[in-house]
Amino acid sequence: MIQMELRTPRGTRDFMPSEMERRERVFSIIRNVYERYGFRPLGTPAFEEMEVLTAKCGEEVSKQIYGISDSSYGLRFDLTVPLARVVASNTSIPKPFKRYQIGPVWRRDEPQKGRFREFWQADIDIVGSASMLSEVEVIAAACEALSELGFSGFEVRLNNRKLLNAFVENTGIPKESVGAVFRALDKLEKIGVEGVKSELREKAGLTDNKILDIMAFTSINGDNTQKLEAVLKLIGGNASGMEGISELKEIIGLFNKYEISRKCSLIIDFSLVRGLDYYTGPIFEVKLPEGVIGGLSIAAGGRYDNLIQLYGAPPTPATGISLGVERILEAIKKQEVEERRDLVFVATVKPDFLDYAIKVVQELRKAGIRAEMDLMGRNLRKQLDYANAIGARFVAVVGEKEAKEQTLTLRDFSSGKEETCSLPDAIKRLE
Amino acid sequence: MIQMELRTPRGTRDFMPSEMERRERVFSIIRNVYERYGFRPLGTPAFEEMEVLTAKCGEEVSKQIYGISDSSYGLRFDLTVPLARVVASNTSIPKPFKRYQIGPVWRRDEPQKGRFREFWQADIDIVGSASMLSEVEVIAAACEALSELGFSGFEVRLNNRKLLNAFVENTGIPKESVGAVFRALDKLEKIGVEGVKSELREKAGLTDNKILDIMAFTSINGDNTQKLEAVLKLIGGNASGMEGISELKEIIGLFNKYEISRKCSLIIDFSLVRGLDYYTGPIFEVKLPEGVIGGLSIAAGGRYDNLIQLYGAPPTPATGISLGVERILEAIKKQEVEERRDLVFVATVKPDFLDYAIKVVQELRKAGIRAEMDLMGRNLRKQLDYANAIGARFVAVVGEKEAKEQTLTLRDFSSGKEETCSLPDAIKRLE
Repeated sequence: MIQMELRTPRGTRDFMPSEMERRERVFSIIRNVYERYGFRPLGTPAFEEMEVLTAKCGEEVSKQIYGISDSSYGLRFDLTVPLARVVASNTSIPKPFKRYQIGPVWRRDEPQKGRFREFWQADIDIVGSASMLSEVEVIAAACEALSELGFSGFEVRLNNRKLLNAFVENTGIPKESVGAVFRALDKLEKIGVEGVKSELREKAGLTDNKILDIMAFTSINGDNTQKLEAVLKLIGGNASGMEGISELKEIIGLFNKYEISRKCSLIIDFSLVRGLDYYTGPIFEVKLPEGVIGGLSIAAGGRYDNLIQLYGAPPTPATGISLGVERILEAIKKQEVEERRDLVFVATVKPDFLDYAIKVVQELRKAGIRAEMDLMGRNLRKQLDYANAIGARFVAVVGEKEAKEQTLTLRDFSSGKEETCSLPDAIKRLE
Repeated sequence: MIQMELRTPRGTRDFMPSEMERRERVFSIIRNVYERYGFRPLGTPAFEEMEVLTAKCGEEVSKQIYGISDSSYGLRFDLTVPLARVVASNTSIPKPFKRYQIGPVWRRDEPQKGRFREFWQADIDIVGSASMLSEVEVIAAACEALSELGFSGFEVRLNNRKLLNAFVENTGIPKESVGAVFRALDKLEKIGVEGVKSELREKAGLTDNKILDIMAFTSINGDNTQKLEAVLKLIGGNASGMEGISELKEIIGLFNKYEISRKCSLIIDFSLVRGLDYYTGPIFEVKLPEGVIGGLSIAAGGRYDNLIQLYGAPPTPATGISLGVERILEAIKKQEVEERRDLVFVATVKPDFLDYAIKVVQELRKAGIRAEMDLMGRNLRKQLDYANAIGARFVAVVGEKEAKEQTLTLRDFSSGKEETCSLPDAIKRLE
């Protein structure tokens, strides 16, 4: 046979059972919180019409879309664009529409440590409500999920595109440079203050004075109240800016009514920009404390009131947040101590007792217990090795005596304890 | 804005919340049974190297693979090929390897009623065991899942490629025609006896005598014992054929030890062929009774002992079954009476009571109850309409009296009953 490339495509991965079980546990916790918050699942295809995908994704993301050969389709790069399409093409959906979606997305990005070409996202969005209560609901749900996943000490960073716009407008920066300014600011963590300055100079074509103004704006200090006072002076009078300030105040006020606010702080951060072009109002990011995966952003989102009407729908406000599932899993992997699974392996002393072994295995399964038996006619020693290799928690040995007396000898792999009991008693112990 | 195509790509679908909830319920039941049977989850990428995909998928399937532009990748068309690649490239996996995978696959097939270009499969496979106990385990698990999904009266059809091969060999049909013969036979249900005959004549180039022999073989009648006796005469002495017969006998004997065998009959059917080229031993199909989605096959599989070594691994026997998730969902949709969801909508009499509404919603969620509230400042009437539209089971009305007394007025949407109670009492009622 021909030698084949057996690795997965670059930037994609196989998930072996233990890893996959961890992932499913994480997804299930997230799903559970989302559902309690009244979000309902939505499913969309892996690929979409290219013109739907590229409608407002910005050039950088557009270059990363995987096309499907001989078609007008491309693989989805996020879960927000499909949502916008669904809402625009189903105007009868009751509003607000609160949906969640957990699934893979694909980007032909340069793979790096922790960055993949196929990766999962877990999104919630609220479509149809202009109220800041929506922002609070999605932020609270995301924080609740992170908390249930075992994280603590995380921070919610908060800004508002309306404020950014107002400030940029007041500073007299021409409209056509705004995009470049935002893209430069978004790189603050990656390339530092000096890097941002030189990008503002070179790519956005700003003068040194304007650059200083912008840097002063993004580095406003103090607690939330002080920051809002300071920014009020800077944007003073600009109507969009005033809206931005009042929205931030409203979010902070409402969020404090949620118990989860005691577990994470909401911090105004004027340096937060968020790359995507479609944001129009509040934007936010949840960051883990420095010690955990480098204090990286683990959830992010914002309001995008103009995206859905781009697909031909009437004006439809919307806001949402996306949990960075891969980073969450990376962080959990580092903390977690691997647990033995609750699997029972029924080991047969001799092939003669296969009938009884089948009975035992089936009775266990019937009681909802994960159970396995030898499928290879192996000797006892090899069966035990196998049970150990697949991470079974218990071994139930069945031999002549057990088959005759309808019992089994149950050994706890982790404690080494062993006892012989009837099948119903064993089930009671294992349940 | 430009008029865009807002439909999903041909043969793909959006799943709106009610539909998606039904799908997730079905997946969760299947996953649960698979896990109880000791299968563990495996995850693989959506796309693979094209040479991996096409290694042994046959020409017809090969034409249906979606390619990824500017790459050597294609979207997976089933979950067996990725499994074979994973096993071949990870030789240290303890054997037998029992894995399940539930996920979408893609085929550029002609979409028809109930046939899609993006569709889900739910597979279990046992890799590394040559024992017929593996066949029995996968068949039993699939039947158990179907039974828990509410199906009954289904039949397991069983045949063996070794028998088919032996018969074809004995009949003196040249090796190069075997593929064409199998493909013709596989169409029996679709094109009928006469259709198969003319295809055997035209595509496989068989004489009328040979065609009569083959049709006689596929239509052997009687109970399983009679069928096995009759076929023994036809293939008499052929070593592969004798193996095939003894495998069928073993499967029937073992399957009868499983309680699930009382809910479904295992029927030998020599006309069963199964399209895929890679099957080498027992093949099987589970069919629903005639009345349910036309008695179609709802699960199918077989043994493929040569597939994995094709990817450079040592000889590795394997067998598996795939549940036809889309057909299952179609059948369930027809039976199911839509149930109201357990969601509670907290309706606020006036915006003044928002704080208390937030408290109520959050306490309900904390107790694990799905809860929602108004996000739009709507009047009570409109809130109730919305609660009804999203299928809420209960409405909890909070107004001045409730806020003051820390109670809520709970109305059961389906019975129309209403009562005022304390928050803890309400939680007890709703849990």
